[in-house]
Amino acid sequence: MPLDPSFFQPQDAAQLPRYAGLPTFMRLPMLDMAQIAEVDIALLGIPWDAGTTHRAGARHGPREVRNQSALMRKVHHVSRIAPYDLARVADLGDVALPPSGIEIGLAAIEAFYRRVSEAGVRPLSVGGDHLITLPVFRGIARGTALGMVHFDAHSDTNDSYFGGQKYTHGTPFRRAVEEGLLDPKRTVQIGIRGSVYDPADLDFALAAGIRVIPMEEVAARSTEDLLAEARAIVGDAPSYISFDVDCLDPCYAPGTGTPEIGGMTTLQAQHLLRGLQGLNLVGADVVEVSPPFDVGGVTALVGATMAFELLCLLADAHANRGRLPAAAVEGGAA
Amino acid sequence: MPLDPSFFQPQDAAQLPRYAGLPTFMRLPMLDMAQIAEVDIALLGIPWDAGTTHRAGARHGPREVRNQSALMRKVHHVSRIAPYDLARVADLGDVALPPSGIEIGLAAIEAFYRRVSEAGVRPLSVGGDHLITLPVFRGIARGTALGMVHFDAHSDTNDSYFGGQKYTHGTPFRRAVEEGLLDPKRTVQIGIRGSVYDPADLDFALAAGIRVIPMEEVAARSTEDLLAEARAIVGDAPSYISFDVDCLDPCYAPGTGTPEIGGMTTLQAQHLLRGLQGLNLVGADVVEVSPPFDVGGVTALVGATMAFELLCLLADAHANRGRLPAAAVEGGAA
Amino acid sequence: MPLDPSFFQPQDAAQLPRYAGLPTFMRLPMLDMAQIAEVDIALLGIPWDAGTTHRAGARHGPREVRNQSALMRKVHHVSRIAPYDLARVADLGDVALPPSGIEIGLAAIEAFYRRVSEAGVRPLSVGGDHLITLPVFRGIARGTALGMVHFDAHSDTNDSYFGGQKYTHGTPFRRAVEEGLLDPKRTVQIGIRGSVYDPADLDFALAAGIRVIPMEEVAARSTEDLLAEARAIVGDAPSYISFDVDCLDPCYAPGTGTPEIGGMTTLQAQHLLRGLQGLNLVGADVVEVSPPFDVGGVTALVGATMAFELLCLLADAHANRGRLPAAAVEGGAA
Amino acid sequence: MPLDPSFFQPQDAAQLPRYAGLPTFMRLPMLDMAQIAEVDIALLGIPWDAGTTHRAGARHGPREVRNQSALMRKVHHVSRIAPYDLARVADLGDVALPPSGIEIGLAAIEAFYRRVSEAGVRPLSVGGDHLITLPVFRGIARGTALGMVHFDAHSDTNDSYFGGQKYTHGTPFRRAVEEGLLDPKRTVQIGIRGSVYDPADLDFALAAGIRVIPMEEVAARSTEDLLAEARAIVGDAPSYISFDVDCLDPCYAPGTGTPEIGGMTTLQAQHLLRGLQGLNLVGADVVEVSPPFDVGGVTALVGATMAFELLCLLADAHANRGRLPAAAVEGGAA
Amino acid sequence: MPLDPSFFQPQDAAQLPRYAGLPTFMRLPMLDMAQIAEVDIALLGIPWDAGTTHRAGARHGPREVRNQSALMRKVHHVSRIAPYDLARVADLGDVALPPSGIEIGLAAIEAFYRRVSEAGVRPLSVGGDHLITLPVFRGIARGTALGMVHFDAHSDTNDSYFGGQKYTHGTPFRRAVEEGLLDPKRTVQIGIRGSVYDPADLDFALAAGIRVIPMEEVAARSTEDLLAEARAIVGDAPSYISFDVDCLDPCYAPGTGTPEIGGMTTLQAQHLLRGLQGLNLVGADVVEVSPPFDVGGVTALVGATMAFELLCLLADAHANRGRLPAAAVEGGAA
Amino acid sequence: MPLDPSFFQPQDAAQLPRYAGLPTFMRLPMLDMAQIAEVDIALLGIPWDAGTTHRAGARHGPREVRNQSALMRKVHHVSRIAPYDLARVADLGDVALPPSGIEIGLAAIEAFYRRVSEAGVRPLSVGGDHLITLPVFRGIARGTALGMVHFDAHSDTNDSYFGGQKYTHGTPFRRAVEEGLLDPKRTVQIGIRGSVYDPADLDFALAAGIRVIPMEEVAARSTEDLLAEARAIVGDAPSYISFDVDCLDPCYAPGTGTPEIGGMTTLQAQHLLRGLQGLNLVGADVVEVSPPFDVGGVTALVGATMAFELLCLLADAHANRGRLPAAAVEGGAA
Repeated sequence: MPLDPSFFQPQDAAQLPRYAGLPTFMRLPMLDMAQIAEVDIALLGIPWDAGTTHRAGARHGPREVRNQSALMRKVHHVSRIAPYDLARVADLGDVALPPSGIEIGLAAIEAFYRRVSEAGVRPLSVGGDHLITLPVFRGIARGTALGMVHFDAHSDTNDSYFGGQKYTHGTPFRRAVEEGLLDPKRTVQIGIRGSVYDPADLDFALAAGIRVIPMEEVAARSTEDLLAEARAIVGDAPSYISFDVDCLDPCYAPGTGTPEIGGMTTLQAQHLLRGLQGLNLVGADVVEVSPPFDVGGVTALVGATMAFELLCLLADAHANRGRLPAAAVEGGAA
Repeated sequence: MPLDPSFFQPQDAAQLPRYAGLPTFMRLPMLDMAQIAEVDIALLGIPWDAGTTHRAGARHGPREVRNQSALMRKVHHVSRIAPYDLARVADLGDVALPPSGIEIGLAAIEAFYRRVSEAGVRPLSVGGDHLITLPVFRGIARGTALGMVHFDAHSDTNDSYFGGQKYTHGTPFRRAVEEGLLDPKRTVQIGIRGSVYDPADLDFALAAGIRVIPMEEVAARSTEDLLAEARAIVGDAPSYISFDVDCLDPCYAPGTGTPEIGGMTTLQAQHLLRGLQGLNLVGADVVEVSPPFDVGGVTALVGATMAFELLCLLADAHANRGRLPAAAVEGGAA
Repeated sequence: MPLDPSFFQPQDAAQLPRYAGLPTFMRLPMLDMAQIAEVDIALLGIPWDAGTTHRAGARHGPREVRNQSALMRKVHHVSRIAPYDLARVADLGDVALPPSGIEIGLAAIEAFYRRVSEAGVRPLSVGGDHLITLPVFRGIARGTALGMVHFDAHSDTNDSYFGGQKYTHGTPFRRAVEEGLLDPKRTVQIGIRGSVYDPADLDFALAAGIRVIPMEEVAARSTEDLLAEARAIVGDAPSYISFDVDCLDPCYAPGTGTPEIGGMTTLQAQHLLRGLQGLNLVGADVVEVSPPFDVGGVTALVGATMAFELLCLLADAHANRGRLPAAAVEGGAA
Repeated sequence: MPLDPSFFQPQDAAQLPRYAGLPTFMRLPMLDMAQIAEVDIALLGIPWDAGTTHRAGARHGPREVRNQSALMRKVHHVSRIAPYDLARVADLGDVALPPSGIEIGLAAIEAFYRRVSEAGVRPLSVGGDHLITLPVFRGIARGTALGMVHFDAHSDTNDSYFGGQKYTHGTPFRRAVEEGLLDPKRTVQIGIRGSVYDPADLDFALAAGIRVIPMEEVAARSTEDLLAEARAIVGDAPSYISFDVDCLDPCYAPGTGTPEIGGMTTLQAQHLLRGLQGLNLVGADVVEVSPPFDVGGVTALVGATMAFELLCLLADAHANRGRLPAAAVEGGAA
Repeated sequence: MPLDPSFFQPQDAAQLPRYAGLPTFMRLPMLDMAQIAEVDIALLGIPWDAGTTHRAGARHGPREVRNQSALMRKVHHVSRIAPYDLARVADLGDVALPPSGIEIGLAAIEAFYRRVSEAGVRPLSVGGDHLITLPVFRGIARGTALGMVHFDAHSDTNDSYFGGQKYTHGTPFRRAVEEGLLDPKRTVQIGIRGSVYDPADLDFALAAGIRVIPMEEVAARSTEDLLAEARAIVGDAPSYISFDVDCLDPCYAPGTGTPEIGGMTTLQAQHLLRGLQGLNLVGADVVEVSPPFDVGGVTALVGATMAFELLCLLADAHANRGRLPAAAVEGGAA
Repeated sequence: MPLDPSFFQPQDAAQLPRYAGLPTFMRLPMLDMAQIAEVDIALLGIPWDAGTTHRAGARHGPREVRNQSALMRKVHHVSRIAPYDLARVADLGDVALPPSGIEIGLAAIEAFYRRVSEAGVRPLSVGGDHLITLPVFRGIARGTALGMVHFDAHSDTNDSYFGGQKYTHGTPFRRAVEEGLLDPKRTVQIGIRGSVYDPADLDFALAAGIRVIPMEEVAARSTEDLLAEARAIVGDAPSYISFDVDCLDPCYAPGTGTPEIGGMTTLQAQHLLRGLQGLNLVGADVVEVSPPFDVGGVTALVGATMAFELLCLLADAHANRGRLPAAAVEGGAA
């Protein structure tokens, strides 16, 4: 017997103050994976930072984002989207995986997301470092290369690190393109900046057809203009939004692995996210919140709020496009 | 015998470094309430957070704002207002009130401000959470509903919390309108944002005639435009400015009870405050600085600087409009 | 159908790392109050600091203690007590109550604990400030004055604060004695120290027959000697252990409302707690963990570990004395 | 007309909570130096760290010690000394002096303390780095070499630093001996430890006759034994206690300029201080609290509590030996 | 035998992760001053804060900026300048000087920079407080008054502090003008703001012909417009860029001695710096990073990144204008 | 031509203050591995935390321990050992290895230490998490099982984690025993405590013959007694000291991966280390300093000071037993 729709509501702050109770995402009910079919959108944590090349700590991201998400309320104040009226949403917990062992972790995440995908559920994931997006894609791509709007200071399309490590948080999108999971021609990266190892660092991305919008261009153009371009690039095919908090200036998100000054404001990022309403979204994530480097929880609060922005987009997609087809699928990509 | 005008000057940093001596507001002399008639403008602390619904700590606000106010100098660098040349200003200390007991606290603050008002003194208050503004209004309104320019992320016009609590930091302006202390038609709220409990959250404010300017509108319009509207709304009748530091983005003011990302910059807020010069101001406050959640004292420094901005406005009002009439008054509002 | 005993086991860290998953107390399963009869010992949070006279923040205590309790394992390394083999233990969540309103809060806690008591369950509570112990006593005393071993820097037997406030975290045990909930002759307070308001501050406690062991005596006597005295005082009648983290030196527990230097070491406190094995315990608590004043989570870790020490004592009491009688009871005390 | 004895009482926490009001030392009234004759004991701040060789910040010491001293109450819980019943005590503010300029600072402090001394007042000073004790001695020694009980990790009897700098926080007591201000044969240093620049580092101190008790000896002997020796050394002639917070282990006092692990506990230090009751004390100080390096204010709280311990000793000396003779004096030492 | 050009490359992060190895500036090789002739551009630390009037700590600046500079890579992502391909750059260590003693420090810095200048090397210095720029000028000016683009919240052209102290971090540019080291007519100060001691505070600067661009003007005009004016002012004669991190809003640079809210964004500052490419630069500095007041290292990261921006400008100047003439010079200025 | 003995001296703090210059270990000169034969004792960093099961961050340990080691001076104040007079000591840098990849890291460390060992040099290593000790043993054991004095809260002799991971910081000594690198009968573990996963957790260690001294026994016995036992166990054959900072109470070492309350004091640990003078030491390490979880650098200072204690022991061993034989060796152990 399915759960009552009233079940899928956040704990009411008028009954239990925000600092009380267990910190699930958005104070939503907790379900376990056996109940995945009950939901339309799953909030999920991927506590893993084995791909991090400098400052670890993103493994603690899901817990602190959950904590700060207690500040989220029920209705978006600009778009008026009320996600819990549009879709059944719950916290499905964290993927279980050890802190080290790249191959083990990649396989565990992929397997987990394959179950999510097979249930027809849109996942909204909280990392974890940015390497997590690769196995999420492997799990949900269903043989079709996804489009992506990618907020980040870094293109994350390097080839390898440390003498051949192919899987780090600086390489996921090179791998995703190579594996046919990500359609570079339907991919736009926003906010890219910071000194580079080599003038050729972006050559792969550019050659593949990824549209790289550096931070300087973000600052110089209007939000409307940027959005028009981004929407045109990703089009109406299945797409994904990946939000690395280091797209923001470190004053907003100091708790991250590879901060770069001169970044976006939270308000700019929120405007951009809101402008993506209507895309054919099959999932989204917020990554690179690293609590040990955070100060006063501000980065986790940013992560939680951006997750709420994304949740509204996913709920809108669910309401307008329906649940994803719940069919067993074969491989990650052709 | 009145105190010599030279008395009302900040401690000279060339004599005593900023880190030395007692941290009064702006390094001004300390008077006690028996001497209230000696001043034109009173700097006051209200160390109280009994109205806070989530993260307490604003009770420690006055102390840390005093500490950081040691960095303030004597003349405003843009408006050229020299407040200590225009008015007699002193630190009158903190309102004495226990940390809990809503009714006791409301009554104590009201009684205290009645004395301030009866002396014809303009108060500049440092909270404490935003509930303090309600009893301040009760003390100073003198039977006339005030106009207000209200900087905040939240409208603070909810009806009640936790099953009927009418007095919290989320409700003061609903109460103030109901009690005839605040004229909603002469009230403008600037910077409102953040997810809401219910789509109807702002219905009371809007129905009452309060002009709510959401953050998105602040970002989209020019300062001059916003100021023209705000000044037109409040007009020339007695008015008040209430500055909740959560109107600012948390990167400027992490130390607050209910942070909302995507807020104003300090420079935007300063431009707006400066543009309010000339209003018929009878008082002002800075609220919701919560030191236990601050990092590196930055929020307290913001609070101190905004208090200096407000002090310049009040000194200008005193210089141009004279001292408030020092007459015993009967009730808070008709 | 009762839950399977295997249900009442902490999440295995070999399956899910300690930083992953929801932070229930000790990584135990979460039940709601409707299932209270399923457990022998209930871990409970009371997120409330309305009784605090100086630095608030203990309302955030349960959440951070839960977070740090992820470091606890399954078996006590000295006593060899394996609590989850001896008793069914679960996290029953937090008492729902608003942050302010002393009377409301006292009533809500009492009502909640009355249900716990009526189910025959031993509660292990995490505060919250020390005022919480009073309504807990009201809920569980069942008409008999309890004995108590009380770890604290302060006797908490003052009469009132702020001109008549009878209910603060400095008064619970005066009230408990007055109400017949606490038997002063079976009460021992350990670690008392710090300057006093008045030489008569302890007169009530001493006159009532409470044995006050100041910190200086703790330092001078052997643990065995202290334990022998403490055990003799409380005897074999129903008793309670209340552990205020400010009994410890602030180097171990900086995150608390009223720190006093010159306190116990954690190891001393652990030795004392372990030596209380065998008492006729009907409940216990850990209070005054105030996360906003903590540094690096050390106080919350201390709170979590002391909660584990207490859990072992309660599990042992359950194993040796059986479940408390689950009978409806009338009033708090005769 | 002298001030009423009732004037010299701390602000009552039952009237005004500890976080409210101006943070004078111990919440005592503030007087200015023109009123020095009104008091028996003066609490004074010396916000100066020009003598610091590594981590500066002790200039901020007086302010934070004042803040934390709000936690002190009125009566010592062990000695039962009630200082405000025995002596008129007030906060006389901070010595005014610029942050740099060694000679200027030394002269300003000496001149200030000469006035204190000439008024017959016992000073209790809060630094500042340890260099401050030298000019304090110059101001109060009155031609007689003082005895001293000196708590510290370091002997502070080096000759010079940085190629000839004679006045640093590592040299004050060499200078004081050379200038005849300190009687090395009546001087005992307690808690000395830490690696040394040269095996001969202590040669001057030992040759001069200073009794150096290393930390290892403090740990090995009983408090009573140590006190008997210390009291015998300083005898009954005019003496001083200088308490450098780095005598404590950094876990108690991380906020200091030159921390050394393996130090005293606060309780050990308190026992030692209490055991010095009855000495012929003419002054005392607490130095090297460096707030920028503190965590959670713990070091400032230690500084405030040790200042209260010292205040009790000075009040007892005043009660038993009377006020110091208030006579103009010529030089610092013969 | 000169060092091989391949020597002057940063440690490769693909070989040794950024957190490993010694933290030299930009992970460059370390040389000592005897090897100064080997380099074209020297990265230097001046760990000195004796000129600081409020919060010290900039003495620790070079170490933390070095730490955070490990995040810098090799090529500028906007200008495409690859500094290590254009010039031989190395870390030449810190100037050795004691923490106090203004005259000693000024002389030591001047002597050190005279050696740098005589070798024909462009220095890029990391302070230390802003007083350091005066002796740097004395060392490198070579008899010609320099032009300067000066980023700061403060004009630093006060006359004296504390009753006659001529050398503080608030006075270096008055001294530099007086000594003929700085050409006020070729000097532009950008970002000036904050309350002033006296309406006449800027009179010296303005009378001397310095162009003071207050923050309000920075906010109101376009970057291109500002740059056109700045470039016109400094012209093509030898010039210097001095970057005080307090030009930035404290949200970007909380770790500084005299923060002023309402400042520049890092992105604005970066755009301005990049627009200065092509100036006839003889040196540059980043000052006022004060790690003890920093939170999460964000200010040191800003300092490191701005140093990289400046390095690109200096490398470009070297590539286009050649090495400075390596000739012995007599005095600082005519 | 060998380096002059005067080369191997720490940078003189009288020339260059402690906060200045590059932070090598103990301010010693830096050599690279090609010069390993020049030294008798090598200070080495192993920035690696791939074995950590809960809170990562020990990869940043070497950098922060180097920073804090600037506070170390030249001569031990108790043992009077002057290590730089007894042996040539230098900082040989960090082992280069990527942050993830267990097998790669183990191999890189082993290879590095094989070179150290073949040069006849005693290594003093700073981790990194405790897994590093295993490959160090593989590199230096030279076919003989070492004895060990092991300071730790945990035995680190578990078999595996997370479903079969054999190499974590909880398993190194099980592996070392299995591989014949560690002689369990000559191994003593001191300070073991904390709840356990299973009553059988220590069965392997005990069965193998390791002497496990729990913290409770450390607290109950005299230092002399403990040392006598420890020295008897390890005997005079080649031995190693491994110091995990979590042997200390978290109040001394909060910055660590798996804190356990109720631990040793720093002074206890220092006494124990000093009592190990004379052992036949072939190396030592300090591990588990995790700077992201540290507060105020206290843990890194503890790490640096314990490294100095160990350095004195190694220098003494060198002076009395001579350099280790510098011969090429085949395998890690028979």
